[in-house]
Amino acid sequence: MKHQQLLARLAQPSEHRIVLLVLDGVGDVRTAEQPRTALESAATPNLDRLAEASALGRIVPVAPGVTPGSGPGHLALFGYDPREPEVDIGRGVLEALGLEMEVARGDVTARGNFATAGPGGELTDRRAGRIPSEESVRLTAAMQRAVDGAAVPGLEVTLRPGEGHRFVLRLRGEGLSPALADTDPQQLGVAPLPVRAAAPEGEATAAAVARVVAAMEGAIAGEERANRVLLRGFSQLPHLPPVGELYRLRAGAFAGYPLYRGVAAACGMEVVPCGKRLPAIVEAVAERWDDFDYFFLHVKQTDQAGEDGDLAAKVAHLEEVDAALPRLLDLGPGVVAVTGDHSTPAPLRGHSWHPVPVLLHGPHCFADEARRFDEVEAIRGHLGTFPSYQLMGLLLANAGRLAKFGA
Amino acid sequence: MKHQQLLARLAQPSEHRIVLLVLDGVGDVRTAEQPRTALESAATPNLDRLAEASALGRIVPVAPGVTPGSGPGHLALFGYDPREPEVDIGRGVLEALGLEMEVARGDVTARGNFATAGPGGELTDRRAGRIPSEESVRLTAAMQRAVDGAAVPGLEVTLRPGEGHRFVLRLRGEGLSPALADTDPQQLGVAPLPVRAAAPEGEATAAAVARVVAAMEGAIAGEERANRVLLRGFSQLPHLPPVGELYRLRAGAFAGYPLYRGVAAACGMEVVPCGKRLPAIVEAVAERWDDFDYFFLHVKQTDQAGEDGDLAAKVAHLEEVDAALPRLLDLGPGVVAVTGDHSTPAPLRGHSWHPVPVLLHGPHCFADEARRFDEVEAIRGHLGTFPSYQLMGLLLANAGRLAKFGA
Repeated sequence: MKHQQLLARLAQPSEHRIVLLVLDGVGDVRTAEQPRTALESAATPNLDRLAEASALGRIVPVAPGVTPGSGPGHLALFGYDPREPEVDIGRGVLEALGLEMEVARGDVTARGNFATAGPGGELTDRRAGRIPSEESVRLTAAMQRAVDGAAVPGLEVTLRPGEGHRFVLRLRGEGLSPALADTDPQQLGVAPLPVRAAAPEGEATAAAVARVVAAMEGAIAGEERANRVLLRGFSQLPHLPPVGELYRLRAGAFAGYPLYRGVAAACGMEVVPCGKRLPAIVEAVAERWDDFDYFFLHVKQTDQAGEDGDLAAKVAHLEEVDAALPRLLDLGPGVVAVTGDHSTPAPLRGHSWHPVPVLLHGPHCFADEARRFDEVEAIRGHLGTFPSYQLMGLLLANAGRLAKFGA
Repeated sequence: MKHQQLLARLAQPSEHRIVLLVLDGVGDVRTAEQPRTALESAATPNLDRLAEASALGRIVPVAPGVTPGSGPGHLALFGYDPREPEVDIGRGVLEALGLEMEVARGDVTARGNFATAGPGGELTDRRAGRIPSEESVRLTAAMQRAVDGAAVPGLEVTLRPGEGHRFVLRLRGEGLSPALADTDPQQLGVAPLPVRAAAPEGEATAAAVARVVAAMEGAIAGEERANRVLLRGFSQLPHLPPVGELYRLRAGAFAGYPLYRGVAAACGMEVVPCGKRLPAIVEAVAERWDDFDYFFLHVKQTDQAGEDGDLAAKVAHLEEVDAALPRLLDLGPGVVAVTGDHSTPAPLRGHSWHPVPVLLHGPHCFADEARRFDEVEAIRGHLGTFPSYQLMGLLLANAGRLAKFGA
């Protein structure tokens, strides 16, 4: 957090607005089968024009070789060093946010799996045969009724079904602790683990959760496949210093998907309702242009296309982004950055560790020799290659929002 | 300090001399209005020839986006990580050094402003209407007489006028502490703050300074504009391990301006009297060639031109530097580095955060593809982009002054 404290110490107000446009998973790779990346293949005349007048470079989300999840990838873009333990967003919280569950400070959340156990109690399938989502909806509702009936004193329990065999557990009450061990033994042939505290401060919560699990499993004991539950990643909202306070600005988040809204909210940004695709997102930004100094815009589709291994779809989404760009630039931001939270190369069908190209535009950004926003041009950009969490300093500096360090 | 300790552990003597030529604020930017930087515009045949046989790269003075003052910028070049709290040179010390005041270990210094207060004591102008320097000279002399008359026991008080409404206070005596809060309230309509300790160890010094302030203000109470004083940045010389001891070499500083001489002295270098411009500085270096292993040469004019927004002057000063270069190289240094403590882009009229090009020449430096010493060529240099404080290791290594690490 040292770097963040240094920036916070130097932060000063300015009238220049900052726009951070995150194209989720935008980075890609060249392989024998895919000789051009999505950015190299896309026709992006507006991005090209912006790149000519911009400084380019590359950001490393966590560390060379480390593939980030969406949480660390975004926290780094917001200026938090994701390697710091206090910056960790637990799996339970991230899953809850991803399901549009509101998570308040003090709530404890966990990721749940339905599982199959044999008559002796030993696990035979840790994902309950990957039951369809509709079944998860039905079973979660049954468990919710059972938990409500059991009425653990002082504890408000909320369950929400996820995709397939997944659900989320949220506990609300006084003095809850997330210091609970997973009940998932991570192997078959043994019983689910009892609910246990991972540290002394978790004892009381563990006792309460044990009663909750008993009620939940009572409701599904007769099921053939989903007759047990496994809980993982007990966690609370991290205590992140809010970006608005750190950097003396009003920060607004414009994201169409709940997980990113949740991460932004956890960083103290105001989450603004908006559509799912960039043209609609830009309209929402335009409506609230006077209300913020820092705008986080999130485009999810590039990542989805990468996860699907669909280069053509990724290219098409980049071209849609490109078409929406002029309207965004017309708003007159002082500084614009375009980048991603990580790479999601189509050949890998998932997140990866590769550095992510970043474009930074402002009156004093240094218009360098890099002529296009893509992985290869970015190598010769003026910004160089640096950890993602250091991007915030460049955004602030280019917006005139950092005072001089030392006399 | 970890990095510095590593280098210190490996440092070994060698007959190869190191020349570090600092062109203050040399880095610049390309903007729409200024499509070429000063280095790109200057005709520098000698630097070009040197660059062809050199390794180039870029240094980041503090961190991406952070604009350094002259203190941190130079400390980093001398191998100290300016983000470390113990490397901080306080404002009072830096102002004193900048006014050619000698600052000894144990002295406490503060930056002073003359200010205007109304009849009720409330501040109406924190800079006393920006009085001319001549008035500051007169008032400072009056305050000095009053302080000498008050004779606070065991305390030697020295005042020195600065530019306009500025002056410096230096306290000398046994057991002084810099743990004093600013008396500048940083706002109008309220009275100057009383002298207060910022920590228990500052109590005795605060009591003494309160008497000093009373004497000073007694001497100017009748003034219309400059009738109060505000003190800021109480500080002592930092306890920096001397570069000579760390790296087992004799270090000489050749700088024409007091602030840079002061910073070099604070790092344990011997300060050698010399002229203000490079040709004269090089003559001073030549005279003392046998006395040092490490020569710090400081050229101020490039920074001044940048602060003035005068690209043509910056170019002219670079060309003067270029003309003086052969004489410097003829001395036969083992290693030569040319760089800056930070960028001072003419369009910004001040220090900036942009990386600074660095040129490193030595027999094994790796003559790379970068052909000129400028911001854009430096991007493709062999040295890459790295924090300024790490340059010292490269200077030492190229001079054969670092032993192997580990077996």
